Amino acid sequence: MFEHIHNTLEKIKQGDRRALSKAFTLIESTSVSDHNTILELFAQLKPNNQSKRIAISGVPGAGKSTFINHVVHQLAQKHKVAVLSIDPASERSGGSILGDKTRMQDIANLENVFIRPSSTRGFYGGIAVHTYSSILLCEQAGYEYIFIETVGVGQTEISVQHLCDFFVYLALPKAGDALQGIKKGIMEAIDTVVIHKTDLYDEKVILSTKNMFKESFSFIQSKHKGWTKPIIEHSSVQIDNSTQIISVIKAFFEHLQVSPSHDKIKNRALNVKHLIEHFTKQIWLDKLLANKHYQDQIQRLENSDAKAFYHPVIQAYKIIEALT
Amino acid sequence: MFEHIHNTLEKIKQGDRRALSKAFTLIESTSVSDHNTILELFAQLKPNNQSKRIAISGVPGAGKSTFINHVVHQLAQKHKVAVLSIDPASERSGGSILGDKTRMQDIANLENVFIRPSSTRGFYGGIAVHTYSSILLCEQAGYEYIFIETVGVGQTEISVQHLCDFFVYLALPKAGDALQGIKKGIMEAIDTVVIHKTDLYDEKVILSTKNMFKESFSFIQSKHKGWTKPIIEHSSVQIDNSTQIISVIKAFFEHLQVSPSHDKIKNRALNVKHLIEHFTKQIWLDKLLANKHYQDQIQRLENSDAKAFYHPVIQAYKIIEALT
Repeated sequence: MFEHIHNTLEKIKQGDRRALSKAFTLIESTSVSDHNTILELFAQLKPNNQSKRIAISGVPGAGKSTFINHVVHQLAQKHKVAVLSIDPASERSGGSILGDKTRMQDIANLENVFIRPSSTRGFYGGIAVHTYSSILLCEQAGYEYIFIETVGVGQTEISVQHLCDFFVYLALPKAGDALQGIKKGIMEAIDTVVIHKTDLYDEKVILSTKNMFKESFSFIQSKHKGWTKPIIEHSSVQIDNSTQIISVIKAFFEHLQVSPSHDKIKNRALNVKHLIEHFTKQIWLDKLLANKHYQDQIQRLENSDAKAFYHPVIQAYKIIEALT
Repeated sequence: MFEHIHNTLEKIKQGDRRALSKAFTLIESTSVSDHNTILELFAQLKPNNQSKRIAISGVPGAGKSTFINHVVHQLAQKHKVAVLSIDPASERSGGSILGDKTRMQDIANLENVFIRPSSTRGFYGGIAVHTYSSILLCEQAGYEYIFIETVGVGQTEISVQHLCDFFVYLALPKAGDALQGIKKGIMEAIDTVVIHKTDLYDEKVILSTKNMFKESFSFIQSKHKGWTKPIIEHSSVQIDNSTQIISVIKAFFEHLQVSPSHDKIKNRALNVKHLIEHFTKQIWLDKLLANKHYQDQIQRLENSDAKAFYHPVIQAYKIIEALT
């Protein structure tokens, strides 16, 4: 039995890491008996508006974990920092091939740091909603900086912008068409670009990459009025060389406080609205999947060769018609 | 007014490219008045089991368009080839930053080649379903080889494996952790790997990339019994040097014909089942989005600050409860 939610939350607020880990385990539970306890927890989780939610995105191989390891190592000297990493399971067998825990070895055991891979399991599946709950839990525990690391591709990258206040994009120095593949929506969401692993590349290539981002940004309006998206260089070879990126992060949150039209709370309210819509759709879909008639009809498809010869749209309409 | 569907299909079968283009424009239409005509077309579109559906995937920058340009140039000397490129619109403003039409200039005007970017618009949205309809249209027109180019990230990459018979993955030579970011599900779906742009890389790096794929494949069972996934080198600098990849493609389809347990039709039937499930969910979801009560409640969120303070799961459940 999970002890009373109220007690757990109190312990979490007092900095009890075991209670925090237990709450994470709870929200990842798929056991029916935990269903109501999770809902009770959700009902009591309120956001902490003092926190700073920072997404770290970028192509695979950009060095996100290494970067976080370095920045957080320096930041944690004065602040409590949580790191959540989102690693969406593959459709077939779950999980990416390489883990990244070993890349955060300098911060894994720090008193001020809490690291948790964001599971995609749990009743309230959907990475976005689950990560949001994870953020709220870390906020209860008084973590001031919350980093959300994403694999940086496809839908996950798009939804993470609805979870954070500040969106950092890690790019590698690359000549030529380096921007190919970065969607316009992502370009708009980026609040700062970090050209990473600069120690490994030629000064010319780095400069050309910077210029390319600079030029692209000149065509795109920032979500945050008056904020010019900084493009900075970073190498994660030396520990504690993160002064520049930390200054940018702090400057951004100061900017949010003085900017009258785009304050953090308004932006967060918009993000929550997005999550509500997202999750409402999911509950609605679950109703279909749990429907016995639907299940029967899908089952019947298994043994029918006709499915290969009639257009799926036609067949789908027939299934829905038979339900209603 | 769109002329009678039956006539259009007849013209398409006789090789009338204008009729084919018109049918594509029809299925991309978002006009309500075209709704029934599209359904009528879908009802008459039957797959052609002689065709070869080939997906080309890989990270942005891997050179997919250039590769297709080269392979199709050689293939089209003897065969009719269609190229469909899937470019999922970004969430916010649609479209990637760079187009790729210029990279297929050698094949754009060939008699035997039909190129069409796969729109994500249309009533029957969802890239997978739309692309499937596009494939069927090309099959009506007698295209023997149908290439489906994807941006190779996230959901699109996962769904494209349900549209093709043969899945080609383009990789760049890369030392170290080059496999990072390729999901296990994709590794399983891959039928052959092409190490691309080999002219630009050192022999050692190419060999190490090949070995890495080879090792990974040794842990993964092929979907197609008896098919060992070839890992081949390719450079798209010289035109008409595609003999090796074309041999692999042909060998694969011959393999499917002699393999008793995994024939093409069985696999296609499975894929269509997947599309039916996918589209049934979409129709179901559209019912929610069209619901007036739902729309009202989402509208009400706009002006409420409470949404920022209560967990989205709790708020979503309230919305669904109020509907039913």
